[in-house]
Amino acid sequence: MNSGIEVVYIVKSAPADIEARTEGILLEQAVELPRSVLRDDFVLNHIVGSVRSIEALTTGEFRVTISHPEGTAGNDPAQLLNVLFGNTSLQPDVLLEDVRIPASLLQTLGGPRFGIAGIRQAVGVPTGPLTSTALKPMGLSTDKLAAICHTFALAGIDLIKDDHGLADHAFSRFEDRVRACVDATKRAAQTTGRQSLYVPNLIGSPSRVLEQLRFAQKAGVGGVMISPMLLGLPLLHEIVRNELTVPLLAHPSFGGALRISPEALLGRLFRWFGADAVIYPNYGGRFTYSKETCARLAALLRQSDDGLPPVLPVPAGGIKIERLSETIAFYGEDVMLLIGGSLYEAADDNALLQRAKSFVAGARN
Amino acid sequence: MNSGIEVVYIVKSAPADIEARTEGILLEQAVELPRSVLRDDFVLNHIVGSVRSIEALTTGEFRVTISHPEGTAGNDPAQLLNVLFGNTSLQPDVLLEDVRIPASLLQTLGGPRFGIAGIRQAVGVPTGPLTSTALKPMGLSTDKLAAICHTFALAGIDLIKDDHGLADHAFSRFEDRVRACVDATKRAAQTTGRQSLYVPNLIGSPSRVLEQLRFAQKAGVGGVMISPMLLGLPLLHEIVRNELTVPLLAHPSFGGALRISPEALLGRLFRWFGADAVIYPNYGGRFTYSKETCARLAALLRQSDDGLPPVLPVPAGGIKIERLSETIAFYGEDVMLLIGGSLYEAADDNALLQRAKSFVAGARN
Repeated sequence: MNSGIEVVYIVKSAPADIEARTEGILLEQAVELPRSVLRDDFVLNHIVGSVRSIEALTTGEFRVTISHPEGTAGNDPAQLLNVLFGNTSLQPDVLLEDVRIPASLLQTLGGPRFGIAGIRQAVGVPTGPLTSTALKPMGLSTDKLAAICHTFALAGIDLIKDDHGLADHAFSRFEDRVRACVDATKRAAQTTGRQSLYVPNLIGSPSRVLEQLRFAQKAGVGGVMISPMLLGLPLLHEIVRNELTVPLLAHPSFGGALRISPEALLGRLFRWFGADAVIYPNYGGRFTYSKETCARLAALLRQSDDGLPPVLPVPAGGIKIERLSETIAFYGEDVMLLIGGSLYEAADDNALLQRAKSFVAGARN
Repeated sequence: MNSGIEVVYIVKSAPADIEARTEGILLEQAVELPRSVLRDDFVLNHIVGSVRSIEALTTGEFRVTISHPEGTAGNDPAQLLNVLFGNTSLQPDVLLEDVRIPASLLQTLGGPRFGIAGIRQAVGVPTGPLTSTALKPMGLSTDKLAAICHTFALAGIDLIKDDHGLADHAFSRFEDRVRACVDATKRAAQTTGRQSLYVPNLIGSPSRVLEQLRFAQKAGVGGVMISPMLLGLPLLHEIVRNELTVPLLAHPSFGGALRISPEALLGRLFRWFGADAVIYPNYGGRFTYSKETCARLAALLRQSDDGLPPVLPVPAGGIKIERLSETIAFYGEDVMLLIGGSLYEAADDNALLQRAKSFVAGARN
């Protein structure tokens, strides 16, 4: 029974107004006209959706579920966002809580290319938690970033990504960095016998991001990362459908300011649009996601009963090496742990290597 | 004295914590590491910015101003957003209130191509308020939308745009609609002697939007519209810098859910990235922007002392024809009034024509 695009909102409203308010949202998100002036049969029968339910919450708010005909989204990712939360985003009393879409639209979107299985294959780790870290800080020269990358690869970290703040800066050009870091992981692999994946951050206007993607894939990167909310969610979809040959990590930068639940945005839309792994702030760090939100995010990302591949949850944002076993116990094995800052609490390169090694050992245990 | 990228946030914090909180935001937005582990001189001297001021507000919140070195933005629009509100967007106690950038970065961004003067020239109306309306609702066939467009053009409305919900739907293909509506305005011009501008809504993944833009410009549209927050703000910049030959309207769809003040997002960023006219919800309609916000938005968009052209404020969202003179008195003459729904309160095509004519007459008075 999910033939339409079902959108769940939390709406602040006086009880006497909630029915009219819900009708207003229904119309705003499709026809943008009062029902009284709609005179076209096709519009009335195939465009205007319906209110599925209105539920009073103990918070004094209401959970309303609206269903729009699938055709309103025009098989287009940008237009899907428009139908979900276009003008209604401009009404501060409404939060987008959840989204459900028909299997046909899910297939049109296409979802991830690699998912958990593809990432495990790429890193050669069939079971257990995976490890990842970030090259930082912004401002280091390419040589220095590549040296850190080499250290992390020597330690055996599975996936070494750019910090999402590393762009095409004058002090570390994108192309130079990609070449140097791919090379650093290859040299480390000659020592260790294991190939770490280097994952650059793609950032810029769409045509520049496509250039970066092509360059990186040709240079032999193990994956790529983008921040879909900075670049635009439709670009995520376009990259995945048209160009992608390696797994894609999605970063939540710029995405938290949206009045959209993390579950809907990161848990559903990022995966539907094609991310193979989704980074999000772990509970207990320097961000404020609750344990429950993190558990729900992990479950949504690892979902496999909708026909799309499960993808990797990547909790991040202040995980301490000291909290590793707790975090693993919480998430189970299909997870990629992302520890950045905590590794860098090292006085020199050797201490950095030792901390990275203990991270890997802790994850492999 | 504006040598860096100055970002103003409103932060909820206990007074005892605000200094540490501000330091945390400063580091989060650039290096993503605690200061104690920063060991590189270039990073310390040229990447880590500084706190300019912390001001206690009567609301129990604080206004903090942080300055980042211009180089952190890497001359890239997406990375600029990242520096302004990347990870910090994930912290719900922080709102982005305002942004100031150096003249050099402003010149790099480039801003609008046409601005108010270019739009006035395109519509042939050198002074006084301009008029605009929207083709709607989603679901009408191309023929029916073109017929409405013809009616509005006969009435002399300056700019007739697609509703932002008109995409490349099976029931009204983008290319067909553009051809039919350009033709409708030309036929009307043969009757009236005045050419209305038809402005289609571009929507889709970036490559599809570029296709639509090229098709539309070749077909002779008078302008184009995009929703930058649906498509991604960097695509706005790319279109304006690389492809645009007609004025561009920006629509706020999906943009209101951001914890960014309308002034910063619509008033500054949209213009800096290149919009020639910015649509926003007018006060007193079905959205909740206050009169003060609307006045500030209009002033920011019409700014001309920063070296970029002033652009047109386009208040919309429930302006009634009956409120026209009040709205004109409020905004003065450099404004484009956008009335959609109120025009459609018409029993038939002739009534629609009459309402549209009275809208134009009211604006021209």
